[in-house]
Amino acid sequence: MDTQRQFDKELADLKRTLIRMAALAETMIDKAISELVSRDETVASKIPDYEEELNRLQIEIDEAVLTLLATQQPVAVDLRFIVAATRINSELERIGDLVINITENAQVLLHQPPLKPLIDIPRMADLARKMVRESLEAFVGEDPLLAQSVIMTDDQVDGLKDQILRELLTYMMGDPRAIERALSLIFIARHLERIADHATNIAEDVIYMIQGRDVRHPLTPKERPPGFEV
Amino acid sequence: MDTQRQFDKELADLKRTLIRMAALAETMIDKAISELVSRDETVASKIPDYEEELNRLQIEIDEAVLTLLATQQPVAVDLRFIVAATRINSELERIGDLVINITENAQVLLHQPPLKPLIDIPRMADLARKMVRESLEAFVGEDPLLAQSVIMTDDQVDGLKDQILRELLTYMMGDPRAIERALSLIFIARHLERIADHATNIAEDVIYMIQGRDVRHPLTPKERPPGFEV
Repeated sequence: MDTQRQFDKELADLKRTLIRMAALAETMIDKAISELVSRDETVASKIPDYEEELNRLQIEIDEAVLTLLATQQPVAVDLRFIVAATRINSELERIGDLVINITENAQVLLHQPPLKPLIDIPRMADLARKMVRESLEAFVGEDPLLAQSVIMTDDQVDGLKDQILRELLTYMMGDPRAIERALSLIFIARHLERIADHATNIAEDVIYMIQGRDVRHPLTPKERPPGFEV
Repeated sequence: MDTQRQFDKELADLKRTLIRMAALAETMIDKAISELVSRDETVASKIPDYEEELNRLQIEIDEAVLTLLATQQPVAVDLRFIVAATRINSELERIGDLVINITENAQVLLHQPPLKPLIDIPRMADLARKMVRESLEAFVGEDPLLAQSVIMTDDQVDGLKDQILRELLTYMMGDPRAIERALSLIFIARHLERIADHATNIAEDVIYMIQGRDVRHPLTPKERPPGFEV
């Protein structure tokens, strides 16, 4: 195989591994929230295995990236892609950690009677999963518009989280026996919010990679060209 | 200047910028917690400026790293160092975001009478600041022992956070009027815990960079060589 074809193959492998990581992260979110809603612990039994695989794949990608950089000396968009891969695998691995946190908070809830029917938390989880999937699709498809839509979905997630917080605060004020359970639900909502933040980070990296332009920090008023509207 | 000297100079610049970022992050943590303890808002007035500088330096480092990789084709430990730099600058930038979150939660507290004297939160903040400083010292000094000590300090931070949570839960149960303030303090403790987590990530990257060995995920029982004690 010639060098270019070897390089293309290694890039394709990298993409495949990242997609596998995103699929694992998505499954983990789904199972953690299904456990919470169904109150059936067996639903979440495979989560620790998935998390272990996520950790293993993160290391695999870091090693592949260092080898690619050392042996192939990529430039321009390939270089940006490869550097982005070592950041994106960290984001996905941390999403795995956050799902583990969710299952820990769920333990508190599964051993007590339900506080309230769960509507907004599963909705947040669905949005967060979609953001994870689409941020990776945007990455492998080099699609800045899809990345932009992921970034915009984050506002919906933040809105839901604020709503959940306000509602649970009311429960806590009304009945001290609700406090521990309400707090566990607040923590779960915050873990989901952070999962959405990690997907947003991935989407921002995608736009940076494609356009060589940094969307991670909006321009300050001074930096904006005249007539630049926000 | 010859190529090697140019390269060494660029590496030195990279280190200096990362140290500047860590110093900013440390100052931000200090000022946010001082504001909370002194109940004097002017103490925190410079925090948004520091955060803006942190964001600017993050982008500066990313650009410098891409240029270094494209023009100098570094290998071995230099390559690992440069790739680590693009991860460490993200960790530092996120520490800045978390300090902003702390100042937002502090706003709730500064407009109400104090709930309790603050002892453990300033203690957590001191540990977190020390971890940020030492993780960067370990990085620029390529010191795996210092990195290991940062990782170990994280357990103390987690212990303090659990203690704070338990204490504030008691306040919440005892008086519904304490709930909102207690919740704000719980959130601040969790932001500090996450700042310590970011410093831990940096320390783990340092060990990985120096030893080419991954400490981010402990070996599973199956992977451990016989006689390997944990």
